[in-house]
Amino acid sequence: MFQQLGVIGCGLMGGSFALALKRQGLVKRVVGYSKSPSTTERAKRMGIIDVAAESALLAVAGSDLVLIAVPVSATETTLRAMRNLVEPGMLVMDVGSTKRDVVDAARRVLKERVVHFVPAHPIAGKEASGIDHADAGLYAGRQVILTPLAQTPPELVQRATDVWAAIGAQVLKMSPENHDAAFAAVSHLPHLLAFAYFSAVARQPAGRDFLSLAGPGFRDFTRIAASDPAVWRDILLANREEVIRQAQRFRHTLDAFEHVMRSGNAEALEDLIRSASEARAQWQMNQRR
Amino acid sequence: MFQQLGVIGCGLMGGSFALALKRQGLVKRVVGYSKSPSTTERAKRMGIIDVAAESALLAVAGSDLVLIAVPVSATETTLRAMRNLVEPGMLVMDVGSTKRDVVDAARRVLKERVVHFVPAHPIAGKEASGIDHADAGLYAGRQVILTPLAQTPPELVQRATDVWAAIGAQVLKMSPENHDAAFAAVSHLPHLLAFAYFSAVARQPAGRDFLSLAGPGFRDFTRIAASDPAVWRDILLANREEVIRQAQRFRHTLDAFEHVMRSGNAEALEDLIRSASEARAQWQMNQRR
Repeated sequence: MFQQLGVIGCGLMGGSFALALKRQGLVKRVVGYSKSPSTTERAKRMGIIDVAAESALLAVAGSDLVLIAVPVSATETTLRAMRNLVEPGMLVMDVGSTKRDVVDAARRVLKERVVHFVPAHPIAGKEASGIDHADAGLYAGRQVILTPLAQTPPELVQRATDVWAAIGAQVLKMSPENHDAAFAAVSHLPHLLAFAYFSAVARQPAGRDFLSLAGPGFRDFTRIAASDPAVWRDILLANREEVIRQAQRFRHTLDAFEHVMRSGNAEALEDLIRSASEARAQWQMNQRR
Repeated sequence: MFQQLGVIGCGLMGGSFALALKRQGLVKRVVGYSKSPSTTERAKRMGIIDVAAESALLAVAGSDLVLIAVPVSATETTLRAMRNLVEPGMLVMDVGSTKRDVVDAARRVLKERVVHFVPAHPIAGKEASGIDHADAGLYAGRQVILTPLAQTPPELVQRATDVWAAIGAQVLKMSPENHDAAFAAVSHLPHLLAFAYFSAVARQPAGRDFLSLAGPGFRDFTRIAASDPAVWRDILLANREEVIRQAQRFRHTLDAFEHVMRSGNAEALEDLIRSASEARAQWQMNQRR
Protein backbone atom coordinates (compact mmCIF):
# COMPACT_ATOMS: atom_id res chain seq x y z
CA MET A 1 0.00 0.00 0.00
CA PHE A 2 1.34 3.39 -0.98
CA GLN A 3 0.48 6.67 0.72
CA GLN A 4 0.81 8.81 -2.39
CA LEU A 5 1.40 8.18 -6.07
CA GLY A 6 2.91 11.03 -8.04
CA VAL A 7 2.17 10.70 -11.77
CA ILE A 8 4.24 12.86 -14.08
CA GLY A 9 2.57 12.83 -17.48
CA CYS A 10 -1.20 12.30 -17.28
CA GLY A 11 -1.66 10.42 -20.55
CA LEU A 12 -2.82 6.92 -21.43
CA MET A 13 0.00 5.15 -19.58
CA GLY A 14 0.13 7.35 -16.47
CA GLY A 15 -3.64 7.67 -16.19
CA SER A 16 -4.18 3.92 -16.59
CA PHE A 17 -1.57 3.19 -13.91
CA ALA A 18 -3.29 5.58 -11.49
CA LEU A 19 -6.72 4.06 -12.20
CA ALA A 20 -5.40 0.51 -11.80
CA LEU A 21 -3.80 1.29 -8.42
CA LYS A 22 -6.94 3.01 -7.22
CA ARG A 23 -9.11 0.10 -8.30
CA GLN A 24 -6.91 -2.33 -6.36
CA GLY A 25 -6.90 -0.04 -3.30
CA LEU A 26 -3.13 0.21 -3.49
CA VAL A 27 -2.82 3.96 -3.08
CA LYS A 28 -4.42 6.55 -0.79
CA ARG A 29 -3.89 9.62 -2.92
CA VAL A 30 -2.79 10.40 -6.48
CA VAL A 31 -1.06 13.68 -7.32
CA GLY A 32 -0.66 14.36 -11.03
CA TYR A 33 1.28 16.75 -13.20
CA SER A 34 1.19 17.26 -16.96
CA LYS A 35 2.98 19.79 -19.12
CA SER A 36 -0.41 21.05 -20.28
CA PRO A 37 -2.47 22.40 -17.31
CA SER A 38 -5.70 21.55 -19.13
CA THR A 39 -4.68 17.86 -19.24
CA THR A 40 -3.92 17.87 -15.51
CA GLU A 41 -7.27 19.52 -14.81
CA ARG A 42 -9.05 17.01 -17.02
CA ALA A 43 -7.38 14.10 -15.19
CA LYS A 44 -8.61 15.58 -11.93
CA ARG A 45 -12.16 16.09 -13.19
CA MET A 46 -12.18 12.49 -14.42
CA GLY A 47 -11.18 11.31 -10.92
CA ILE A 48 -7.95 9.78 -12.21
CA ILE A 49 -5.83 12.02 -9.99
CA ASP A 50 -6.92 13.61 -6.71
CA VAL A 51 -4.64 16.63 -6.74
CA ALA A 52 -3.32 18.61 -9.71
CA ALA A 53 0.31 19.61 -9.13
CA GLU A 54 1.80 22.68 -10.77
CA SER A 55 5.19 21.12 -11.44
CA ALA A 56 6.87 17.73 -11.65
CA LEU A 57 8.66 18.59 -8.39
CA LEU A 58 5.35 19.24 -6.61
CA ALA A 59 3.97 15.91 -7.90
CA VAL A 60 6.95 14.14 -6.33
CA ALA A 61 6.78 15.98 -2.97
CA GLY A 62 5.38 13.61 -0.35
CA SER A 63 5.01 10.70 -2.77
CA ASP A 64 6.35 7.24 -1.90
CA LEU A 65 5.68 6.06 -5.47
CA VAL A 66 6.44 8.12 -8.58
CA LEU A 67 5.63 7.14 -12.16
CA ILE A 68 7.30 9.10 -14.93
CA ALA A 69 5.03 8.63 -17.95
CA VAL A 70 6.35 11.25 -20.36
CA PRO A 71 7.75 10.80 -23.90
CA VAL A 72 11.21 9.17 -23.77
CA SER A 73 12.88 12.39 -24.97
CA ALA A 74 11.42 14.30 -21.98
CA THR A 75 12.65 11.80 -19.37
CA GLU A 76 15.95 13.53 -18.64
CA THR A 77 14.33 16.97 -18.20
CA THR A 78 11.73 15.42 -15.93
CA LEU A 79 14.36 13.69 -13.80
CA ARG A 80 16.23 17.00 -13.55
CA ALA A 81 13.10 18.84 -12.41
CA MET A 82 12.37 16.33 -9.65
CA ARG A 83 15.77 15.11 -8.50
CA ASN A 84 16.01 17.21 -5.34
CA LEU A 85 13.01 15.44 -3.84
CA VAL A 86 14.02 11.86 -4.70
CA GLU A 87 14.70 10.40 -1.26
CA PRO A 88 14.86 7.20 0.78
CA GLY A 89 11.57 5.33 0.94
CA MET A 90 10.62 6.47 -2.54
CA LEU A 91 10.22 4.19 -5.57
CA VAL A 92 10.55 5.95 -8.93
CA MET A 93 9.67 4.19 -12.19
CA ASP A 94 9.21 5.14 -15.83
CA VAL A 95 7.29 3.49 -18.68
CA GLY A 96 9.67 4.16 -21.58
CA SER A 97 9.96 1.82 -24.57
CA THR A 98 13.77 2.09 -24.59
CA LYS A 99 15.89 1.48 -21.53
CA ARG A 100 19.60 2.13 -22.11
CA ASP A 101 19.03 5.83 -22.78
CA VAL A 102 16.73 6.14 -19.75
CA VAL A 103 19.23 4.40 -17.46
CA ASP A 104 22.05 6.62 -18.76
CA ALA A 105 19.97 9.74 -18.17
CA ALA A 106 18.98 8.59 -14.69
CA ARG A 107 22.61 7.90 -13.69
CA ARG A 108 23.68 11.27 -15.06
CA VAL A 109 20.93 13.28 -13.39
CA LEU A 110 20.11 11.42 -10.20
CA LYS A 111 23.70 10.43 -9.34
CA GLU A 112 23.69 8.46 -6.05
CA ARG A 113 19.89 8.87 -5.84
CA VAL A 114 19.57 6.61 -8.88
CA VAL A 115 19.22 3.68 -6.42
CA HIS A 116 15.57 4.73 -6.02
CA PHE A 117 14.87 4.36 -9.74
CA VAL A 118 13.60 1.07 -11.19
CA PRO A 119 13.27 1.42 -14.99
CA ALA A 120 10.09 -0.20 -16.32
CA HIS A 121 8.62 -0.89 -19.75
CA PRO A 122 5.03 -2.12 -19.76
CA ILE A 123 4.21 -3.83 -23.10
CA ALA A 124 0.80 -2.24 -23.27
CA GLY A 125 -0.88 0.53 -25.17
CA LYS A 126 -3.69 1.41 -27.48
CA GLU A 127 -3.80 3.05 -30.86
CA ALA A 128 -5.55 5.97 -29.16
CA SER A 129 -3.46 7.95 -26.69
CA GLY A 130 -4.29 10.55 -24.06
CA ILE A 131 -5.99 10.66 -20.69
CA ASP A 132 -9.43 10.17 -22.26
CA HIS A 133 -8.47 6.59 -23.08
CA ALA A 134 -7.04 5.75 -19.64
CA ASP A 135 -8.20 2.30 -18.60
CA ALA A 136 -7.78 0.55 -15.23
CA GLY A 137 -7.36 -2.74 -17.11
CA LEU A 138 -4.65 -1.59 -19.52
CA TYR A 139 -1.87 -3.55 -17.81
CA ALA A 140 -3.82 -6.66 -16.87
CA GLY A 141 -2.37 -9.72 -18.57
CA ARG A 142 0.43 -7.68 -20.13
CA GLN A 143 4.18 -8.10 -19.72
CA VAL A 144 6.19 -5.46 -17.85
CA ILE A 145 9.96 -5.50 -18.23
CA LEU A 146 12.04 -4.15 -15.35
CA THR A 147 15.71 -3.35 -15.96
CA PRO A 148 16.92 -2.71 -12.38
CA LEU A 149 20.40 -1.33 -11.67
CA ALA A 150 22.97 -3.42 -9.80
CA GLN A 151 23.08 -0.94 -6.91
CA THR A 152 19.30 -0.81 -6.35
CA PRO A 153 18.28 -2.54 -3.07
CA PRO A 154 16.50 -5.86 -3.78
CA GLU A 155 13.59 -4.76 -1.54
CA LEU A 156 12.89 -1.84 -3.86
CA VAL A 157 12.98 -4.04 -6.96
CA GLN A 158 10.59 -6.37 -5.15
CA ARG A 159 8.21 -3.48 -4.41
CA ALA A 160 8.29 -2.52 -8.08
CA THR A 161 7.58 -6.13 -9.05
CA ASP A 162 4.74 -6.36 -6.54
CA VAL A 163 2.95 -3.23 -7.67
CA TRP A 164 2.88 -4.30 -11.35
CA ALA A 165 1.87 -7.84 -10.38
CA ALA A 166 -0.92 -6.43 -8.20
CA ILE A 167 -2.48 -4.72 -11.22
CA GLY A 168 -2.34 -7.94 -13.22
CA ALA A 169 0.91 -7.62 -15.16
CA GLN A 170 3.48 -10.36 -15.68
CA VAL A 171 6.85 -9.00 -14.57
CA LEU A 172 10.14 -9.95 -16.27
CA LYS A 173 13.62 -8.67 -15.44
CA MET A 174 16.49 -8.18 -17.85
CA SER A 175 19.42 -5.88 -18.51
CA PRO A 176 18.77 -2.59 -20.36
CA GLU A 177 21.01 -3.89 -23.18
CA ASN A 178 19.04 -7.12 -23.63
CA HIS A 179 15.80 -5.18 -23.43
CA ASP A 180 16.81 -2.78 -26.17
CA ALA A 181 18.12 -5.56 -28.43
CA ALA A 182 14.92 -7.58 -28.03
CA PHE A 183 12.57 -4.67 -28.64
CA ALA A 184 14.58 -3.45 -31.60
CA ALA A 185 13.81 -6.86 -33.11
CA VAL A 186 10.17 -7.37 -32.20
CA SER A 187 8.81 -3.83 -31.96
CA HIS A 188 11.03 -1.02 -33.22
CA LEU A 189 12.03 -2.62 -36.54
CA PRO A 190 8.44 -3.60 -37.43
CA HIS A 191 7.40 0.01 -36.86
CA LEU A 192 10.25 1.29 -39.03
CA LEU A 193 9.34 -1.21 -41.79
CA ALA A 194 5.65 -0.33 -41.59
CA PHE A 195 6.37 3.43 -41.81
CA ALA A 196 8.75 2.94 -44.75
CA TYR A 197 6.46 0.49 -46.55
CA PHE A 198 3.37 2.68 -46.24
CA SER A 199 5.30 5.75 -47.47
CA ALA A 200 6.77 3.83 -50.39
CA VAL A 201 3.33 2.73 -51.57
CA ALA A 202 1.51 5.98 -50.91
CA ARG A 203 4.10 8.24 -52.53
CA GLN A 204 4.31 6.55 -55.92
CA PRO A 205 2.41 8.00 -58.89
CA ALA A 206 -0.41 5.43 -58.80
CA GLY A 207 -0.29 5.20 -54.99
CA ARG A 208 -3.81 6.48 -54.42
CA ASP A 209 -5.30 3.94 -56.83
CA PHE A 210 -3.24 1.14 -55.35
CA LEU A 211 -4.34 1.99 -51.80
CA SER A 212 -8.00 1.78 -52.83
CA LEU A 213 -7.44 -1.89 -53.73
CA ALA A 214 -5.77 -2.92 -50.50
CA GLY A 215 -7.43 -5.56 -48.35
CA PRO A 216 -7.35 -7.03 -44.85
CA GLY A 217 -3.75 -8.30 -45.06
CA PHE A 218 -2.55 -4.79 -45.88
CA ARG A 219 -4.74 -3.32 -43.15
CA ASP A 220 -3.18 -5.48 -40.43
CA PHE A 221 0.37 -5.22 -41.80
CA THR A 222 0.23 -1.41 -41.78
CA ARG A 223 -1.79 -0.84 -38.60
CA ILE A 224 1.34 0.18 -36.64
CA ALA A 225 2.27 2.69 -39.36
CA ALA A 226 -0.41 4.94 -37.83
CA SER A 227 1.55 5.16 -34.55
CA ASP A 228 2.39 8.49 -32.91
CA PRO A 229 5.21 10.29 -34.81
CA ALA A 230 6.79 12.02 -31.78
CA VAL A 231 6.85 8.83 -29.71
CA TRP A 232 8.39 6.81 -32.53
CA ARG A 233 10.90 9.51 -33.47
CA ASP A 234 12.20 9.24 -29.91
CA ILE A 235 12.26 5.45 -29.83
CA LEU A 236 13.94 5.03 -33.23
CA LEU A 237 16.59 7.60 -32.32
CA ALA A 238 17.17 6.36 -28.76
CA ASN A 239 17.66 2.77 -29.94
CA ARG A 240 18.99 3.44 -33.43
CA GLU A 241 22.08 1.24 -33.20
CA GLU A 242 20.09 -1.87 -32.33
CA VAL A 243 17.33 -1.01 -34.80
CA ILE A 244 19.80 -0.53 -37.65
CA ARG A 245 21.50 -3.80 -36.68
CA GLN A 246 18.14 -5.57 -36.91
CA ALA A 247 17.38 -3.80 -40.19
CA GLN A 248 20.62 -5.24 -41.58
CA ARG A 249 19.55 -8.76 -40.65
CA PHE A 250 16.19 -8.13 -42.26
CA ARG A 251 17.80 -6.80 -45.46
CA HIS A 252 19.99 -9.89 -45.72
CA THR A 253 16.95 -12.14 -45.42
CA LEU A 254 15.06 -10.06 -47.97
CA ASP A 255 18.10 -10.38 -50.29
CA ALA A 256 17.86 -14.16 -49.98
CA PHE A 257 14.15 -14.14 -50.89
CA GLU A 258 14.70 -11.85 -53.85
CA HIS A 259 17.63 -13.94 -55.02
CA VAL A 260 15.55 -17.12 -55.29
CA MET A 261 12.70 -15.16 -56.88
CA ARG A 262 15.04 -13.76 -59.56
CA SER A 263 16.56 -17.15 -60.24
CA GLY A 264 13.09 -18.69 -60.47
CA ASN A 265 13.98 -21.37 -57.93
CA ALA A 266 10.47 -22.37 -56.87
CA GLU A 267 11.58 -25.06 -54.44
CA ALA A 268 14.03 -22.81 -52.59
CA LEU A 269 11.44 -20.02 -52.45
CA GLU A 270 8.83 -22.35 -51.03
CA ASP A 271 11.33 -23.56 -48.40
CA LEU A 272 12.07 -19.98 -47.33
CA ILE A 273 8.37 -19.12 -47.12
CA ARG A 274 7.51 -22.36 -45.33
CA SER A 275 10.12 -21.77 -42.68
CA ALA A 276 8.59 -18.36 -41.89
CA SER A 277 5.00 -19.52 -42.30
CA GLU A 278 5.27 -22.55 -40.02
CA ALA A 279 7.15 -20.62 -37.34
CA ARG A 280 4.58 -17.79 -37.44
CA ALA A 281 1.67 -20.25 -37.29
CA GLN A 282 3.17 -21.78 -34.14
CA TRP A 283 3.96 -18.47 -32.47
CA GLN A 284 1.55 -17.25 -29.86
CA MET A 285 1.62 -13.97 -28.10
CA ASN A 286 2.88 -14.49 -24.58
CA GLN A 287 0.42 -12.07 -23.16
CA ARG A 288 -2.72 -13.40 -21.62
CA ARG A 289 -5.24 -11.27 -23.44
CA MET B 1 -29.48 -17.97 -63.87
CA PHE B 2 -27.01 -20.69 -64.80
CA GLN B 3 -27.92 -24.28 -65.58
CA GLN B 4 -24.71 -25.78 -64.29
CA LEU B 5 -21.65 -24.50 -62.47
CA GLY B 6 -18.49 -26.51 -62.90
CA VAL B 7 -16.03 -25.89 -60.06
CA ILE B 8 -12.49 -27.05 -60.62
CA GLY B 9 -10.73 -27.01 -57.28
CA CYS B 10 -13.07 -27.55 -54.34
CA GLY B 11 -11.27 -25.42 -51.78
CA LEU B 12 -12.15 -22.28 -49.84
CA MET B 13 -12.57 -20.10 -52.93
CA GLY B 14 -14.37 -22.58 -55.19
CA GLY B 15 -16.55 -23.96 -52.41
CA SER B 16 -17.56 -20.49 -51.22
CA PHE B 17 -18.46 -19.46 -54.78
CA ALA B 18 -20.67 -22.55 -55.20
CA LEU B 19 -22.38 -21.93 -51.85
CA ALA B 20 -22.96 -18.26 -52.64
CA LEU B 21 -24.52 -19.04 -56.02
CA LYS B 22 -26.73 -21.72 -54.47
CA ARG B 23 -27.87 -19.37 -51.72
CA GLN B 24 -28.85 -16.76 -54.29
CA GLY B 25 -30.65 -19.35 -56.41
CA LEU B 26 -28.36 -18.54 -59.34
CA VAL B 27 -27.50 -22.08 -60.35
CA LYS B 28 -29.45 -25.32 -60.80
CA ARG B 29 -26.62 -27.79 -60.38
CA VAL B 30 -23.01 -27.73 -59.25
CA VAL B 31 -20.50 -30.23 -60.55
CA GLY B 32 -17.16 -30.25 -58.77
CA TYR B 33 -13.72 -31.69 -59.33
CA SER B 34 -10.66 -31.65 -57.11
CA LYS B 35 -7.29 -33.27 -57.57
CA SER B 36 -7.88 -35.24 -54.40
CA PRO B 37 -10.97 -37.50 -54.71
CA SER B 38 -11.54 -37.32 -50.97
CA THR B 39 -11.90 -33.52 -51.20
CA THR B 40 -14.43 -33.85 -54.01
CA GLU B 41 -16.37 -36.43 -52.00
CA ARG B 42 -16.28 -34.22 -48.92
CA ALA B 43 -17.60 -31.26 -50.94
CA LYS B 44 -20.45 -33.46 -52.10
CA ARG B 45 -21.25 -34.75 -48.60
CA MET B 46 -21.28 -31.14 -47.37
CA GLY B 47 -23.82 -30.24 -50.07
CA ILE B 48 -21.47 -27.71 -51.65
CA ILE B 49 -21.46 -29.60 -54.96
CA ASP B 50 -24.20 -31.85 -56.27
CA VAL B 51 -22.10 -34.10 -58.49
CA ALA B 52 -18.50 -35.22 -58.04
CA ALA B 53 -16.70 -35.26 -61.40
CA GLU B 54 -13.74 -37.54 -62.01
CA SER B 55 -11.80 -35.04 -64.09
CA ALA B 56 -11.64 -31.32 -64.84
CA LEU B 57 -13.01 -32.09 -68.30
CA LEU B 58 -16.04 -33.88 -66.84
CA ALA B 59 -16.71 -30.91 -64.54
CA VAL B 60 -16.79 -28.64 -67.59
CA ALA B 61 -19.04 -30.91 -69.68
CA GLY B 62 -22.49 -29.41 -69.79
CA SER B 63 -21.60 -26.39 -67.66
CA ASP B 64 -22.50 -22.86 -68.75
CA LEU B 65 -20.37 -21.40 -65.93
CA VAL B 66 -16.94 -22.71 -64.97
CA LEU B 67 -14.82 -21.50 -62.06
CA ILE B 68 -11.18 -22.51 -62.01
CA ALA B 69 -10.16 -22.26 -58.37
CA VAL B 70 -6.81 -24.04 -58.33
CA PRO B 71 -3.37 -22.75 -57.28
CA VAL B 72 -2.02 -20.27 -59.87
CA SER B 73 0.70 -22.70 -60.92
CA ALA B 74 -1.92 -25.34 -61.80
CA THR B 75 -3.99 -23.00 -63.99
CA GLU B 76 -2.30 -23.85 -67.28
CA THR B 77 -2.58 -27.62 -66.73
CA THR B 78 -6.23 -27.18 -65.81
CA LEU B 79 -6.95 -25.12 -68.92
CA ARG B 80 -5.22 -27.76 -71.01
CA ALA B 81 -7.32 -30.54 -69.47
CA MET B 82 -10.61 -28.75 -70.19
CA ARG B 83 -9.98 -26.81 -73.40
CA ASN B 84 -11.77 -29.19 -75.75
CA LEU B 85 -15.08 -28.55 -74.03
CA VAL B 86 -14.83 -24.75 -73.83
CA GLU B 87 -17.58 -23.67 -76.21
CA PRO B 88 -19.98 -20.87 -77.09
CA GLY B 89 -22.42 -20.02 -74.31
CA MET B 90 -19.89 -20.87 -71.65
CA LEU B 91 -18.34 -18.37 -69.21
CA VAL B 92 -15.01 -19.47 -67.72
CA MET B 93 -13.39 -17.58 -64.83
CA ASP B 94 -10.51 -18.10 -62.45
CA VAL B 95 -9.77 -16.65 -59.01
CA GLY B 96 -5.98 -16.22 -59.24
CA SER B 97 -4.09 -13.50 -57.38
CA THR B 98 -1.95 -12.71 -60.42
CA LYS B 99 -3.39 -11.98 -63.84
CA ARG B 100 -0.70 -11.49 -66.53
CA ASP B 101 0.53 -15.08 -66.19
CA VAL B 102 -3.03 -16.43 -66.22
CA VAL B 103 -3.95 -14.42 -69.31
CA ASP B 104 -0.77 -15.58 -71.07
CA ALA B 105 -1.51 -19.20 -70.23
CA ALA B 106 -5.14 -18.87 -71.34
CA ARG B 107 -4.13 -17.35 -74.72
CA ARG B 108 -1.52 -20.08 -75.21
CA VAL B 109 -3.80 -22.97 -74.31
CA LEU B 110 -7.29 -21.87 -75.31
CA LYS B 111 -6.26 -20.07 -78.52
CA GLU B 112 -9.42 -18.66 -80.19
CA ARG B 113 -11.56 -20.13 -77.37
CA VAL B 114 -9.94 -17.63 -74.99
CA VAL B 115 -12.88 -15.30 -75.76
CA HIS B 116 -14.91 -17.36 -73.25
CA PHE B 117 -12.46 -16.68 -70.45
CA VAL B 118 -12.91 -13.69 -68.13
CA PRO B 119 -10.00 -13.56 -65.65
CA ALA B 120 -11.12 -12.69 -62.11
CA HIS B 121 -9.40 -11.95 -58.81
CA PRO B 122 -11.69 -11.77 -55.79
CA ILE B 123 -9.97 -9.90 -52.92
CA ALA B 124 -11.24 -12.31 -50.33
CA GLY B 125 -9.91 -15.13 -48.26
CA LYS B 126 -9.37 -16.43 -44.79
CA GLU B 127 -6.31 -17.53 -42.93
CA ALA B 128 -7.79 -21.03 -42.95
CA SER B 129 -8.06 -22.69 -46.35
CA GLY B 130 -9.88 -25.76 -47.64
CA ILE B 131 -13.45 -26.82 -48.30
CA ASP B 132 -14.22 -27.07 -44.57
CA HIS B 133 -14.02 -23.28 -44.34
CA ALA B 134 -16.19 -22.57 -47.41
CA ASP B 135 -18.59 -19.75 -46.62
CA ALA B 136 -21.52 -18.46 -48.70
CA GLY B 137 -20.73 -14.94 -47.47
CA LEU B 138 -17.01 -14.96 -48.34
CA TYR B 139 -17.38 -12.58 -51.28
CA ALA B 140 -20.07 -10.29 -49.86
CA GLY B 141 -18.77 -6.74 -49.58
CA ARG B 142 -15.44 -7.68 -51.17
CA GLN B 143 -13.85 -6.33 -54.32
CA VAL B 144 -13.49 -8.54 -57.38
CA ILE B 145 -11.14 -7.43 -60.13
CA LEU B 146 -11.92 -8.56 -63.68
CA THR B 147 -9.21 -8.22 -66.35
CA PRO B 148 -11.19 -9.01 -69.54
CA LEU B 149 -9.46 -9.46 -72.87
CA ALA B 150 -10.12 -7.05 -75.74
CA GLN B 151 -11.66 -9.78 -77.90
CA THR B 152 -14.12 -11.01 -75.26
CA PRO B 153 -17.75 -10.13 -76.14
CA PRO B 154 -19.07 -7.36 -73.87
CA GLU B 155 -22.14 -9.52 -73.02
CA LEU B 156 -19.87 -12.16 -71.51
CA VAL B 157 -17.99 -9.58 -69.45
CA GLN B 158 -21.38 -8.30 -68.29
CA ARG B 159 -22.46 -11.79 -67.25
CA ALA B 160 -19.26 -12.16 -65.28
CA THR B 161 -19.87 -8.78 -63.63
CA ASP B 162 -23.47 -9.70 -62.83
CA VAL B 163 -22.69 -13.00 -61.18
CA TRP B 164 -20.11 -11.48 -58.80
CA ALA B 165 -22.41 -8.54 -58.08
CA ALA B 166 -25.26 -10.95 -57.37
CA ILE B 167 -23.26 -12.57 -54.57
CA GLY B 168 -22.48 -9.19 -53.04
CA ALA B 169 -19.09 -8.32 -54.51
CA GLN B 170 -18.04 -4.93 -55.84
CA VAL B 171 -16.69 -5.46 -59.37
CA LEU B 172 -13.80 -3.43 -60.84
CA LYS B 173 -12.23 -3.80 -64.26
CA MET B 174 -8.62 -3.13 -65.17
CA SER B 175 -5.86 -4.44 -67.41
CA PRO B 176 -3.84 -7.48 -66.26
CA GLU B 177 -0.75 -5.22 -66.16
CA ASN B 178 -2.36 -2.64 -63.90
CA HIS B 179 -3.75 -5.40 -61.72
CA ASP B 180 -0.38 -7.00 -61.22
CA ALA B 181 1.35 -3.69 -60.52
CA ALA B 182 -1.27 -2.70 -57.95
CA PHE B 183 -1.27 -6.03 -56.13
CA ALA B 184 2.51 -6.21 -56.14
CA ALA B 185 2.36 -2.97 -54.15
CA VAL B 186 -0.50 -3.62 -51.73
CA SER B 187 -0.45 -7.38 -51.30
CA HIS B 188 2.52 -9.26 -52.71
CA LEU B 189 5.25 -6.99 -51.31
CA PRO B 190 3.73 -6.94 -47.78
CA HIS B 191 3.70 -10.74 -47.81
CA LEU B 192 7.33 -10.86 -48.96
CA LEU B 193 8.33 -8.35 -46.25
CA ALA B 194 6.40 -10.22 -43.56
CA PHE B 195 8.00 -13.56 -44.53
CA ALA B 196 11.48 -12.03 -44.60
CA TYR B 197 10.98 -10.08 -41.37
CA PHE B 198 9.66 -13.07 -39.43
CA SER B 199 12.53 -15.27 -40.66
CA ALA B 200 15.11 -12.63 -39.80
CA VAL B 201 13.87 -12.36 -36.23
CA ALA B 202 13.24 -16.05 -35.64
CA ARG B 203 16.56 -17.26 -37.02
CA GLN B 204 18.90 -15.12 -34.94
CA PRO B 205 20.61 -16.62 -31.89
CA ALA B 206 18.29 -14.96 -29.34
CA GLY B 207 15.27 -15.24 -31.67
CA ARG B 208 13.26 -17.50 -29.41
CA ASP B 209 13.65 -15.16 -26.43
CA PHE B 210 12.82 -12.14 -28.56
CA LEU B 211 9.65 -13.75 -29.90
CA SER B 212 8.42 -14.42 -26.37
CA LEU B 213 8.42 -10.64 -25.76
CA ALA B 214 6.51 -9.65 -28.87
CA GLY B 215 3.17 -7.90 -28.45
CA PRO B 216 0.04 -6.98 -30.39
CA GLY B 217 1.82 -4.74 -32.93
CA PHE B 218 4.10 -7.63 -33.90
CA ARG B 219 1.13 -10.02 -33.99
CA ASP B 220 -0.75 -7.91 -36.55
CA PHE B 221 2.33 -6.99 -38.58
CA THR B 222 3.29 -10.66 -39.00
CA ARG B 223 -0.17 -12.21 -39.39
CA ILE B 224 0.27 -12.59 -43.17
CA ALA B 225 3.63 -14.33 -42.64
CA ALA B 226 1.56 -17.44 -41.75
CA SER B 227 0.10 -17.57 -45.28
CA ASP B 228 0.20 -20.73 -47.38
CA PRO B 229 3.73 -21.41 -48.75
CA ALA B 230 2.67 -23.05 -52.05
CA VAL B 231 0.18 -20.29 -52.87
CA TRP B 232 2.70 -17.54 -52.14
CA ARG B 233 5.55 -19.29 -53.93
CA ASP B 234 3.37 -19.18 -57.05
CA ILE B 235 2.30 -15.56 -56.60
CA LEU B 236 5.80 -14.24 -55.86
CA LEU B 237 7.23 -16.08 -58.86
CA ALA B 238 4.40 -15.22 -61.25
CA ASN B 239 4.61 -11.53 -60.42
CA ARG B 240 8.27 -11.29 -59.52
CA GLU B 241 9.16 -8.37 -61.78
CA GLU B 242 6.53 -6.09 -60.27
CA VAL B 243 7.22 -7.33 -56.75
CA ILE B 244 10.96 -6.70 -57.08
CA ARG B 245 10.22 -3.26 -58.54
CA GLN B 246 8.08 -2.46 -55.50
CA ALA B 247 10.75 -3.90 -53.21
CA GLN B 248 13.22 -1.44 -54.73
CA ARG B 249 10.92 1.50 -53.95
CA PHE B 250 10.54 0.19 -50.42
CA ARG B 251 14.31 -0.19 -49.97
CA HIS B 252 14.87 3.39 -51.10
CA THR B 253 12.35 4.66 -48.57
CA LEU B 254 13.91 2.51 -45.85
CA ASP B 255 17.30 3.97 -46.82
CA ALA B 256 15.89 7.46 -46.28
CA PHE B 257 14.58 6.56 -42.83
CA GLU B 258 17.86 4.94 -41.81
CA HIS B 259 19.82 7.90 -43.14
CA VAL B 260 18.02 10.38 -40.89
CA MET B 261 18.26 7.96 -37.96
CA ARG B 262 22.04 7.64 -38.41
CA SER B 263 22.48 11.39 -38.72
CA GLY B 264 20.34 11.92 -35.61
CA ASN B 265 18.08 14.36 -37.48
CA ALA B 266 15.05 14.21 -35.19
CA GLU B 267 13.00 16.72 -37.13
CA ALA B 268 13.49 14.99 -40.49
CA LEU B 269 12.74 11.61 -38.91
CA GLU B 270 9.55 12.91 -37.36
CA ASP B 271 8.51 14.37 -40.73
CA LEU B 272 9.03 11.02 -42.46
CA ILE B 273 7.09 9.17 -39.78
CA ARG B 274 4.31 11.76 -39.70
CA SER B 275 3.80 11.55 -43.44
CA ALA B 276 3.28 7.77 -43.16
CA SER B 277 1.33 7.94 -39.93
CA GLU B 278 -1.17 10.57 -41.07
CA ALA B 279 -1.74 8.89 -44.42
CA ARG B 280 -2.28 5.51 -42.73
CA ALA B 281 -4.66 7.01 -40.16
CA GLN B 282 -6.75 8.44 -43.02
CA TRP B 283 -6.73 5.27 -45.09
CA GLN B 284 -9.79 3.07 -44.92
CA MET B 285 -10.25 -0.27 -46.50
CA ASN B 286 -12.49 0.07 -49.51
CA GLN B 287 -14.33 -3.08 -48.72
CA ARG B 288 -17.64 -2.82 -47.01
CA ARG B 289 -17.06 -5.26 -44.16
